[in-house]
Amino acid sequence: MPLDPKIAARLKRDGGGLVPAIVQQYDTGEVLMLAWMDDEALHRTLTTGRGTYWSRSRGEYWVKGDTSGHVQHVKGVALDCDGDTLLVKVDQVGAACHTGDRTCFDADWLALP
Amino acid sequence: MPLDPKIAARLKRDGGGLVPAIVQQYDTGEVLMLAWMDDEALHRTLTTGRGTYWSRSRGEYWVKGDTSGHVQHVKGVALDCDGDTLLVKVDQVGAACHTGDRTCFDADWLALP
Repeated sequence: MPLDPKIAARLKRDGGGLVPAIVQQYDTGEVLMLAWMDDEALHRTLTTGRGTYWSRSRGEYWVKGDTSGHVQHVKGVALDCDGDTLLVKVDQVGAACHTGDRTCFDADWLALP
Repeated sequence: MPLDPKIAARLKRDGGGLVPAIVQQYDTGEVLMLAWMDDEALHRTLTTGRGTYWSRSRGEYWVKGDTSGHVQHVKGVALDCDGDTLLVKVDQVGAACHTGDRTCFDADWLALP
């Protein structure tokens, strides 16, 4: 079974067939990471309830936590008004970032005026 | 003055010279929208304190709220662990979405198992 055709028809993919997925902790609101999905990754995420993405660097699907144990249990997925971005609400086990930080945005705050 | 060279050196841009920027309400944690920045948009955001992006569809810079009044006052900007995504924390005046919704993710929740 591929991705639901009604959903697939609304997706606006980039030149590589991908859509950015913002991953957010469902209860605290923390933005954990940004990853990328193609139709199949979205289908797997929706049908398995596990955050599943396309790795642009490795050229393969990855299920978050399969290596690290830092699983993402999916609570909801929304498509934005333009159909070109996904918001994935998850319950993140442990650290979302491969550095060991809770989120991928913890380490590098840029200066503001 | 262009973007601080130390920041520019850490940015990993896509083929179009752009980096996705996740825009989040700083106090409630709502994910408001995803937009795109090049070096100049990031420079303007950091130096003016107003959310400023590159419109891929119109091919021009836009300062959020200049047309709608729905201004974004920037509270902080973080670069992620890979240097290829920005998180922009803002205080959003009114609706972030051009549809009038508070966020661009309010309208289209996809089914889950």
